[in-house]
Amino acid sequence: MTTATNPRVLDHPARDDIRLEDVLHALSDAVRLLIVSEMAREEAELSCSHFDLPVTKSTTTHHFRVLRESGVIQQIYRGTTKLNALRRDDLDALFPGLLDGVLEAAAAQSRRLGDPRPAAITS
Amino acid sequence: MTTATNPRVLDHPARDDIRLEDVLHALSDAVRLLIVSEMAREEAELSCSHFDLPVTKSTTTHHFRVLRESGVIQQIYRGTTKLNALRRDDLDALFPGLLDGVLEAAAAQSRRLGDPRPAAITS
Repeated sequence: MTTATNPRVLDHPARDDIRLEDVLHALSDAVRLLIVSEMAREEAELSCSHFDLPVTKSTTTHHFRVLRESGVIQQIYRGTTKLNALRRDDLDALFPGLLDGVLEAAAAQSRRLGDPRPAAITS
Repeated sequence: MTTATNPRVLDHPARDDIRLEDVLHALSDAVRLLIVSEMAREEAELSCSHFDLPVTKSTTTHHFRVLRESGVIQQIYRGTTKLNALRRDDLDALFPGLLDGVLEAAAAQSRRLGDPRPAAITS
């Protein structure tokens, strides 16, 4: 666990401290599924402002924090910009196939519901 | 959606009304993962009292209700006994491979943490 004495260094769980329950909780929200699906597609570090989300900036910040604290993403400052990336290696090592399974399920649901986005935003 | 005018008939979402976000939320709890893992192993209708859970009876009832309302399980009265079964056909039709992926991840985590149960009970 990184100690966040420097406000520019954000707390992340070490790989061994990531828990399935926390990962599933992080993924159990339409907006967070949208964020994670976009990250998986882009395969790059993305700023929070990259995402076109139907929520306020403070809610967006909350969603990214839930994803970070559960171990789903890492957030790193580059200068004054916070960049986000999926922790795919960690997740695939701990739970092989889980992330792809959830992303496929999200895509299947979007197709079924006629929503072009990975998960229907209902909130 | 079944109308619950008869208290012995419990509300369940129809297959088309099951949402991935609700399923992931239902599975994002150690006790509920334990219940679902046991159901998957037994492949039978099980009463709530079948499960040896480290929580009170009212908490147990809550967990089963979350599982039912999300579409993960069905609960049916047979006489005065409430029996529980996984909605595997519905889940596999909507989200192929998702349930097995989560159950495998739960088993992997238990092995990793040295817990003999499907998911470590931490609460």
